[in-house]
Order: sequence, then C-alpha cells, then structure tokens
Amino acid sequence: MSEDRHAQPSGSAAEPLYDPNIPTPTHAERARTLVARISTGTLCTLALEPEGYPYGSFVTVAFDAGNPVFLISGLAEHTKNLERDPRASLMVAESGSEDPLANGRVTLVGPCTRIEGDGSGRAAFLAAHPNAAYYADFRDFAFWKLRVNAIRYIGGYGRMSWISQDDWQLAEPDPLAPSAAGAIAHMNADHADAIVLYCQAFSKATDITLATMTGVDRYGIEMSAQTPEGPRPVRVAFDRPVSSPEELRAVLIAMAKDARSKLNQC
Amino acid sequence: MSEDRHAQPSGSAAEPLYDPNIPTPTHAERARTLVARISTGTLCTLALEPEGYPYGSFVTVAFDAGNPVFLISGLAEHTKNLERDPRASLMVAESGSEDPLANGRVTLVGPCTRIEGDGSGRAAFLAAHPNAAYYADFRDFAFWKLRVNAIRYIGGYGRMSWISQDDWQLAEPDPLAPSAAGAIAHMNADHADAIVLYCQAFSKATDITLATMTGVDRYGIEMSAQTPEGPRPVRVAFDRPVSSPEELRAVLIAMAKDARSKLNQC
Repeated sequence: MSEDRHAQPSGSAAEPLYDPNIPTPTHAERARTLVARISTGTLCTLALEPEGYPYGSFVTVAFDAGNPVFLISGLAEHTKNLERDPRASLMVAESGSEDPLANGRVTLVGPCTRIEGDGSGRAAFLAAHPNAAYYADFRDFAFWKLRVNAIRYIGGYGRMSWISQDDWQLAEPDPLAPSAAGAIAHMNADHADAIVLYCQAFSKATDITLATMTGVDRYGIEMSAQTPEGPRPVRVAFDRPVSSPEELRAVLIAMAKDARSKLNQC
Repeated sequence: MSEDRHAQPSGSAAEPLYDPNIPTPTHAERARTLVARISTGTLCTLALEPEGYPYGSFVTVAFDAGNPVFLISGLAEHTKNLERDPRASLMVAESGSEDPLANGRVTLVGPCTRIEGDGSGRAAFLAAHPNAAYYADFRDFAFWKLRVNAIRYIGGYGRMSWISQDDWQLAEPDPLAPSAAGAIAHMNADHADAIVLYCQAFSKATDITLATMTGVDRYGIEMSAQTPEGPRPVRVAFDRPVSSPEELRAVLIAMAKDARSKLNQC
C-alpha cells in the first residue's frame, strides 16, 4: 500500500490525540465498503471510433464477490467496444461531501466479458436493480462481468493507494456502513455525554468537554473533540470487531460504563 | 444525427397531441445545456499499468467554449497517463431522476493536453471552482484541456446520438436552464389554469381540463395533459426563442391571453 501526497505540512502537525496504530479499516476494506453502497458508475472501454480512445459511459452496476456486473445492450457503444477488446475499468464515486474531491472513489481495472445469464452475476445484479428484470431477457441485453485485477482507491485528500488483488478479494464491506449515519445522528442527538466520556477515558483528549461523533466502522468510532486549539480528530477502537447495529449499541453502552469507572478511579 | 433504439413499439403508439416538427432543442443543444450545469465527471485515460487499459478517474471540470478544462496534479494517475498518451474522454451525467438510466449523460472524446495557466481555460475553471484558487499555483498542479472531437449524447431512454464537432461547437446552452425548475414549480403552483389553456388552444388536447408543466426550454414548454387514456405529453413552441426568465414570463402571459382569445372565438 503506497501513499502519494501533494505536500506534507512540516512541523505544524500537533501530536495526535490517539494512537494511530489502533485498529482501523484498511484501504481494501474502505474501498469494498464504498462500492457495496453504490449502484451506478462510469464504465471505461476502448473505442472503435475514434480508434483506441478511452470511452467513458454511464452504467448501472452490481458487485458479485467484488467483481462488477453489468446488464448492457448489444446496441450500446460500450458493448460494441467490449466485444472487440475486453480491457475495461469501472469508476465509482461517493457523493455527499460538499467538496467533491473529499468524496471517496474507486477504479476497478480488468477484462470485462459476457457471462452466462443464469449465475451469481445475474442474481447479484437483479438484487441490486430489481426493475431491470423486465428487460434482462430482451434479446439485445446480456450480463457482463469485469474481473478485477487492479484497484485504485482514493478516499479523499491524502488517502489513496493501489490495492492488491488479494486484499480486494479478501476484504469485506463494513457491516455497519448501512446503519452508520443513523447511529452517528442518534449518538450526537441523545448521547453527547457518552461521546465526551469516550474521549476523556480512551484518548489523550482527557480534558475536553465537547465532542461529536463523526464516524463509525466495525473497528471503532471517530470523533471530533473541541480543544482550545480547535476541533481535533479522535479515534477509539473497540475491543473486537463489531458486526451489527445491535452489537454496536451494546458495545457503546459498555464503553460508556467502562469510561465512567475509569474516570472515577482517577 | 442517428438514433439507436432497443425496440420500437409498433402500432400501439397513439397519434401525438402536438406537431413533432415544432421547434425543439437539438441534441447538441441538450448536451451543451447538460454539461454547462455539471462540474464533476469521469476522466478516461489510457493506463500505464496495466498497460493500455482504459482508466477512469473522478475529476472536477469546467468548460471553455465546450472544451473540458481540468486542474490536475502531476502526481495523479490520470496526469501520468495523459503525459504519455493524450487520448482521453470525459463522461458527465445528470442526477435527479429516480431511475438512473433516465438521466442524461454526455461523453466528450478528444486529445487532452496541458495548457498555459493564464488563459481562458484557467479563468473558466476558477469561475466554476473558486476554491481551487488556493492550489491552482501549487507546483505539481497544471491546467489541461480536452479538445473535443467526438460527442456521444444519451438523453435518457431512446434519445441518443453522436453529435458532430461543428454542431457541438456552435450549440449554446439553454439560457433558461438555471431557472427552469423554479419557473415550472411556479406555473404548476399558481397558474394551472394557464397550462390547461395552452393545451386547449395550441395542441390537439383541446378538451382536457387538467395539465401540468413538465419542462421549459428556449423554444417552448412541455406539459403532461390528463386525457381519458391517461397522461399524454404536449409541447407548445414559442413564436421565437426566449433568452431570459423575464422574457419567459412575458411570453407565458401573452400566450395565456392569446389562448383565451382563440378559445372564445371558437
């Protein structure tokens, strides 16, 4: 995993308020999590005309064990391109952040070929796009699969790398991703006191009195602690990976209890 | 301009309620209108590794006389790819419709090369992305321009074509596009009676009593008329192209007056 940086502020970075080596999602896990929640992207193929040019087209997509599956018409340019040369990539991007370059995106590169219309690819596609069932069996439509062999992940500013094919295949999407936004909103609305306790007890932000939750993943929670120098990021890891919203709820309650005990003992 | 269709329903189409030959935006105009309102897209380049593969990456973009301009870092994969081979395309897509394949999208193909950092490209980019001013002069960033020589437009289902380079360069974005949504909402909320009059007086939907406005462009308005057979599209053209929201307002008022006169004379 290599990191490319435009520029590194030197000397100005304050000591982190948490141990950066605590469990954190890998780039492969972040990328698999990102694509699992996205159903459209840009398919890049090699054009017939103008010949050899890379040609981007809008597609709906689903993922079958990390490999993109498409249901495309033989009349479409991208299909004609793939019939001639299978080299392809798919770019998918998150939306949401006001600054578009702060959003995550993933490019998946590999050969894209037609697959049988009755296997796991079809099932994955129709599960993600149930309305496509009505044209899935049109004679000019077929399922195609891009077998990923190179993966570029950009998680926003300063978080980017090439992911190995093995890491990509083995990584699993974060099980909390579908419920994360709701959990964060609930914690910030109703349990602001617990968030402060997590920072005080489990990070170096021991004397803050205001913090908000900004993220949650299977390995831990991310917060923004209000310090005299302004907001600073804090991450606190769970004892073990969490696999469901119910488990997350139990862990957060237990952590608040542990934090209270620890702080009272001091 | 060629049309590709998956299938054409035969015999089942009812007679249109308006003359399909009245003034309507061309595909070139629709495509120029689409890109004028979009500031991000997918840049497709030819990869160094795996060699020759088309590589899609997320970019911010602006348009300088119809040619996409980018501000990209020499550290980024797409820039390394372009330095080696300028062949590129940009895909931009609308969002908004619940069915993603109903949204419009445009692919612009052509060579993409570095440009001087003080010309119209820079001005267009920074007008669209004022926050980019802070890194525009970083040493690793430069402006690049894709000189469009092939244009693929897909306006949703059944509306697609290759646009000629001349048509692309000469077409102008619709001047009403930025204000269209507001004008439509206003007409539907406050002037439902006028919309019915437009249908009754200027289309074959002479006996409808309910209609909503669904679109407006420099050449006319689009409506959905409630008929005994269900909702049917109606288009009414203006006498001459309209170039501003103020002019649109005056034209719509005059058309309502004309419609009343015409209907009273019958």
